[in-house]
Amino acid sequence: MLEQEIRTQAEAAKEASYTLAGLRADVRNAALCAMADALMAHRDEILHANAVDVEEAEKAGMRLSYLDRLCLDDGRITSMADGLRLTAALPDPLGREDYSVRRPNGLEIRRVRVPLGVVGMIYEARPNVTSDAIGLCLKSGNAVLLRGGSDALRSNRSIADILSRAAYDAGIPTGAIQLLAMKDRAAVDVMTHLTGLLDVVIPRGGAGLIHRIVESSIVPVIETGAGVCHIYVDRAADLSMALRIVQNAKVSRPSVCNAAETLLIHEEIATDFLPQVAEMLVTDSVELRGCPKTCAILPNIVPATEKDWDTEYGDLILSIRIVHDLEAAIAHINRYNTGHSEAIITNDIRTAHDFQQKADASTVYVNASTRFTDGFEFGFGAEIGISTQKLHARGPMGLDALTSTKYLVYGEGQIRENASSPQKKEAHECGG
Amino acid sequence: MLEQEIRTQAEAAKEASYTLAGLRADVRNAALCAMADALMAHRDEILHANAVDVEEAEKAGMRLSYLDRLCLDDGRITSMADGLRLTAALPDPLGREDYSVRRPNGLEIRRVRVPLGVVGMIYEARPNVTSDAIGLCLKSGNAVLLRGGSDALRSNRSIADILSRAAYDAGIPTGAIQLLAMKDRAAVDVMTHLTGLLDVVIPRGGAGLIHRIVESSIVPVIETGAGVCHIYVDRAADLSMALRIVQNAKVSRPSVCNAAETLLIHEEIATDFLPQVAEMLVTDSVELRGCPKTCAILPNIVPATEKDWDTEYGDLILSIRIVHDLEAAIAHINRYNTGHSEAIITNDIRTAHDFQQKADASTVYVNASTRFTDGFEFGFGAEIGISTQKLHARGPMGLDALTSTKYLVYGEGQIRENASSPQKKEAHECGG
Repeated sequence: MLEQEIRTQAEAAKEASYTLAGLRADVRNAALCAMADALMAHRDEILHANAVDVEEAEKAGMRLSYLDRLCLDDGRITSMADGLRLTAALPDPLGREDYSVRRPNGLEIRRVRVPLGVVGMIYEARPNVTSDAIGLCLKSGNAVLLRGGSDALRSNRSIADILSRAAYDAGIPTGAIQLLAMKDRAAVDVMTHLTGLLDVVIPRGGAGLIHRIVESSIVPVIETGAGVCHIYVDRAADLSMALRIVQNAKVSRPSVCNAAETLLIHEEIATDFLPQVAEMLVTDSVELRGCPKTCAILPNIVPATEKDWDTEYGDLILSIRIVHDLEAAIAHINRYNTGHSEAIITNDIRTAHDFQQKADASTVYVNASTRFTDGFEFGFGAEIGISTQKLHARGPMGLDALTSTKYLVYGEGQIRENASSPQKKEAHECGG
Repeated sequence: MLEQEIRTQAEAAKEASYTLAGLRADVRNAALCAMADALMAHRDEILHANAVDVEEAEKAGMRLSYLDRLCLDDGRITSMADGLRLTAALPDPLGREDYSVRRPNGLEIRRVRVPLGVVGMIYEARPNVTSDAIGLCLKSGNAVLLRGGSDALRSNRSIADILSRAAYDAGIPTGAIQLLAMKDRAAVDVMTHLTGLLDVVIPRGGAGLIHRIVESSIVPVIETGAGVCHIYVDRAADLSMALRIVQNAKVSRPSVCNAAETLLIHEEIATDFLPQVAEMLVTDSVELRGCPKTCAILPNIVPATEKDWDTEYGDLILSIRIVHDLEAAIAHINRYNTGHSEAIITNDIRTAHDFQQKADASTVYVNASTRFTDGFEFGFGAEIGISTQKLHARGPMGLDALTSTKYLVYGEGQIRENASSPQKKEAHECGG
């Protein structure tokens, strides 16, 4: 039953995706603008649905920070609409040729950007993701199958309904926008097994959700979000710059994935730098947890355990470790990080270069805060999420991450002769 | 035990990958040439090991075609060595900058190509894949963990040992080349769960192997190989060209994935074209299986069943269906294909354009044989396999498919201010 219902929605999305792939950019962009207008025109409907969601979540005893993410107001709906208009104004990610060759036999081969097809999005509380995801998927010519958090179901349904009506009126094929409207948690497992219907699943949410999807999905997944980010203060660092950057990376918004969780300090500057940074952070209400050497210098702080090194606190907590040298800093990072963002503070060019090369992460900073890792700060004008894997997309994902490629080959009757030399190797046998 | 053994090998590969990523291209290329020399110098060792493998496979009653793929001789070893030298001569896939921007706040952001890290290859019989895979991975700065077919274990071990010794002597870090030397089939399941150690798993082999890995792996997989390829002969086709292309796509090498399995014919030309193509193919010993309309014109052929439409025969069998128009041809293709290669034969520009846009496959041909889909024919100079998925790589994969990207950001102390407007959206919360 549940499976059939979801499969039917996915099939409708797949069918729509073929038409969507051929829609001109001006049609897609006009649809996004009409959708923005519809959000504004129907915001009372959305706010009403949202109020019921929030009330139920309050009754269920949800935390304040959770309620805050769930709750919509006029300002947030305006932001969603503005987001759709900004997406409409971005350059079209489709059709661009990124490889072409004319072969000796006269074949003309071009590789162009095409939509992925059907994108599955699985996310938690925030209802604005519903609007953002629909906008980014349509902009990139994809159909979308959405599974939002069940606490936000009424809000999500209201948003998706309003956007769907406006989209279809504006020429987007019926079926392109699909929201799973059941609360059953098994829906996620059904979604992640829709091979042949979904081309990718993108989970956005807590580590638990992401881990569960990576473990179970047979549809390709783009892993996003988890960020155990480090700042390494080298012996050749400008210490006042280091203080500013550490403060920004830890304190300015501790709940986001590009916030820093661990501070690594070169042993030669530890006695000088540690008391300064500790004083600053304690003033900012940051709890510090240190390695034994750190605790020797700052006897009042909590000793860090092994578990601290791979924890994404998402909170005003910072672990600190004193390291012998650059190599030790890199070894720590490559062992404990999540491949998100790393920063070094140094004025030494060779040290900076080595760090950038050897720290294994999507983004490696020299003398800047890890907080900059996102699609808007990187100039993409949009963000689907931040990939922490290496396949397909790594780091902040803009619209390009929602596209694939297709080879278009033009011939005049060419046929292939059989291989005779290693220069003319053959496609591999299917059998091995 | 088994798991620990494999994990230890993967950890050694991971460790080596950090050093490998920083090795200069001339060191990697010189190593490949030294490895080619070593293969030639030690070919008797390899042939000896291979003879034992072949003898055992014969005893086990393996098919002749299987034995043929397993068996090595001087010519095949020379081809393997030539392959390594050709790989060495290819342009370096690493370090190329493919995006850069200087942001208003002065941050300089560059995105460069880097290795994936550790590549897991799982393949079946042919021992030359061992050499090819090692060469392509080292060329692209990756460490490699290989799991070949157990029937070829002695051959693979001999090849990997010889190549490893030569590689390490030439400056490749110890540990970069790892071959799993146990026959236990559970090794594959251990490999596909080495998250954090393997960055990708690439299966090469039959549909059963690939399906099993896609189903079970939690390491990202690049799905390769299965090819249910179609040729659609439009009413505006040059029929003599269509005959040549159908013959080439079906007969020239039926066992490969870019061979055609199904012929679609526009109904207006069916009575004219079908008898001609049938006569030609029957002469070539091809068994034909037709839809009811086809059987009405060719009463002697076998009726096709539903199963025929999604079968990759890999053999001299062709299914044939008469379709009402272009839309019906595309609907058939998008329902039954594997996303590999599709071809249309037509002289009508609009029909050709629509077909290229709507047929959902890695490669869509106008007036050419599907047999051209491979990395060498596409000008990449190498081939890892042919991806039939849309993420990361689609279609023939050259060295670029074995790379990822990394953002390198240079700052002078920049910190991030908190978001205040939708134009300055924030990285998403970790919690949703």
